[in-house]
Amino acid sequence: MRELAMLTATEALARIAAGSLRAEEWRAACLDRIHVAEPTIRAFAAHDPNAVRAAPLGTGLLGGVPVGVKDVIDTQELPSQYGSEIWTGHRPRADAACVALVKSAGGYVMGKTVTTEFATRRPGPTANPHHTGHTPGGSSSGSAAGVAAGFFPVAFGTQTAGSIIRPAAYCGVVGFKPTYGTIPRIGMKMMSESLDTIGALARSVADAALLVAATGGGDLGNPDIAPGSAPRIGVCPGPKGAVGDDATYALLAQTAAALSREGAIVSDVPLPAVFDDLEHWHPVMMNGESALSMAWELAHHAPAISDGLRERLHWGAAQGIEKLRAAQLGIDGLRRAFDDLMGRYDFILTPSAPGEAPAGLEWTGDPMFNAAWTALHVPCVTVPVGRGPLGLPLGMQIVGKRGSDRATLAWAAYVAGRA
Amino acid sequence: MRELAMLTATEALARIAAGSLRAEEWRAACLDRIHVAEPTIRAFAAHDPNAVRAAPLGTGLLGGVPVGVKDVIDTQELPSQYGSEIWTGHRPRADAACVALVKSAGGYVMGKTVTTEFATRRPGPTANPHHTGHTPGGSSSGSAAGVAAGFFPVAFGTQTAGSIIRPAAYCGVVGFKPTYGTIPRIGMKMMSESLDTIGALARSVADAALLVAATGGGDLGNPDIAPGSAPRIGVCPGPKGAVGDDATYALLAQTAAALSREGAIVSDVPLPAVFDDLEHWHPVMMNGESALSMAWELAHHAPAISDGLRERLHWGAAQGIEKLRAAQLGIDGLRRAFDDLMGRYDFILTPSAPGEAPAGLEWTGDPMFNAAWTALHVPCVTVPVGRGPLGLPLGMQIVGKRGSDRATLAWAAYVAGRA
Repeated sequence: MRELAMLTATEALARIAAGSLRAEEWRAACLDRIHVAEPTIRAFAAHDPNAVRAAPLGTGLLGGVPVGVKDVIDTQELPSQYGSEIWTGHRPRADAACVALVKSAGGYVMGKTVTTEFATRRPGPTANPHHTGHTPGGSSSGSAAGVAAGFFPVAFGTQTAGSIIRPAAYCGVVGFKPTYGTIPRIGMKMMSESLDTIGALARSVADAALLVAATGGGDLGNPDIAPGSAPRIGVCPGPKGAVGDDATYALLAQTAAALSREGAIVSDVPLPAVFDDLEHWHPVMMNGESALSMAWELAHHAPAISDGLRERLHWGAAQGIEKLRAAQLGIDGLRRAFDDLMGRYDFILTPSAPGEAPAGLEWTGDPMFNAAWTALHVPCVTVPVGRGPLGLPLGMQIVGKRGSDRATLAWAAYVAGRA
Repeated sequence: MRELAMLTATEALARIAAGSLRAEEWRAACLDRIHVAEPTIRAFAAHDPNAVRAAPLGTGLLGGVPVGVKDVIDTQELPSQYGSEIWTGHRPRADAACVALVKSAGGYVMGKTVTTEFATRRPGPTANPHHTGHTPGGSSSGSAAGVAAGFFPVAFGTQTAGSIIRPAAYCGVVGFKPTYGTIPRIGMKMMSESLDTIGALARSVADAALLVAATGGGDLGNPDIAPGSAPRIGVCPGPKGAVGDDATYALLAQTAAALSREGAIVSDVPLPAVFDDLEHWHPVMMNGESALSMAWELAHHAPAISDGLRERLHWGAAQGIEKLRAAQLGIDGLRRAFDDLMGRYDFILTPSAPGEAPAGLEWTGDPMFNAAWTALHVPCVTVPVGRGPLGLPLGMQIVGKRGSDRATLAWAAYVAGRA
């Protein structure tokens, strides 16, 4: 049963098509995994096994595929509570657009997955399946842990700073933040309209591509077909201010060396100084926009917002609208500059996170290796590559050019297969 | 009473501050206007006079100001039905962020105003206060008509193509579509994430500035203080494909001549050919994104979508994601090109609509003079200038540089005072 639950969606769909697996068996295997491991992992904010058993198994790109849905994304059949007591018991009238697209493509919702408070910092109860004393990362905590634990093959996450890529890396799975604007956000509890991006967590690059393709991404190709030529790779130690563990930089160097031996054209590319402002502008944009987005909660439920988030919202508001507008327009200019830079590379290779998942469940880790790319709106994929000193997973991040998601996924699969 | 109801918010707030008007009197005057004229104008999708009388009169930038809220924007106290039977009786748990910001600034909701179906084409019952046999325009029909009729001094509208500027022009009021991203859209029923922009309808430029300043716009200054130097004005007959009435072009020429006599540096600027693609890309973006946004309605309530909208959604989906992405990235490039063009002008002067409001209530008019500017994310203001051959209002549109909303409002007031 465990083996069935750990199938990728791509593998399972192939077996179903070949008649060697029934979607009901696959579902039962996933439900069995959940029954066994959920008391320890706590990936779900809401999950009803009886309703899941009764869910229609449709046909289409996601025919019979169970999907985890981060609890900042609305579902009609389950509460949507955004990781906050302010929204306890909230039952949306409609599915979010991306959930409706899953169902139209034949998939079904396995459950709502734990998010940190409004996809920011205060963690939920989820543990890392590789070591339950360590954080799974956040904010897409339950989606990353549930994919790693075999509860579902694919799940939606969202990223405003590093909320897909970091937990995916910590949990040893694939994370894909597509180009900004790919998956519709209607029915998502948004915080920063200029940054929030819905994406996928999965156990293979092909599966991440599958979920996004079915929900706004269009034809993302088959990432497992190797590109025709060797890539031009820019190796980047990270955005300004990002500091990782020794093991992380060693892994970056090893990965680059391995790809170079395979014929890749590898060169170092510290992110040019023009991008230094991202370090200052990202928090102004994120917290400034979030303070406006949370106007209703701040007016009516301020005491129910965690101290940490309330402080960040007040800091964001205190920066002022003029500074927010400068950040919005300034970052917009940098997106063009990055497009130009990417004329020289097929992709940037850079760490996914500072290191292994931190110990304890109180701190979901730092998004410093992710926030700049999120602000630049570019596609990012993390693939599990190696382990750290504690034996926990490490990831490598493949960053592509805005709109070049198909190529970026193919290069991610290339890296995953050769690193 | 009628005279009180027709006060601008800026005037009323000054009188309240001076002790010569009480907010309760002002409210009573507006409610009286509604009682008398609403049966003919039909601006409201939901309005409860008793609840309005009981609403707290707060303090702040909008202390005691009644606000009309387009019914694609959620309110806690009134149904939010988006102009569609699919959402009949929907009662959101929270105010939209912009509504919460109104209340935090001391304002209150006068009612939900009629929108066309999901802010697209199928009209509601609203009539034009200048001639009830003519459309008020759309999609912000009730907000424009209610401002013109004295039901409230200011109202929220939203624009995806021409849904603020056009109805404002038809109803002889001011419309302000700020730079994209100014007012948060959390709690708005979005259709096209790359285009949808919340803005204001009002009876003066200062009032439009006031509402937007209080809800995300920051310090927009006092538009009635004349700028220190004469403007450099680019006179534009409209985006490619836009065709107006003779009276519209005559008004454009007269306005330009009047401003030139006042010392403005006026030159003709047909929108350069690089922007021609906007004509093709805007509908691809709008309808392609809307088809994704409406995934839930399409899956569960397709027969309740009007034939016209369903056709547009199907057309949008049929263009394919690759073409949508090309439109998104292509238009993004044009925004930079327009920023460059605007180095030569303080503002573009261009028609707000093809002509007077069309006869009948079935057709809300064509947004061809608006869609390109919406796609460019630039601030646009329409001010009432003159009348057409039927004696109905005409507007002139002031288009500024992205992020230069404060200056654009000041130039709009300058044009309104001199044309």
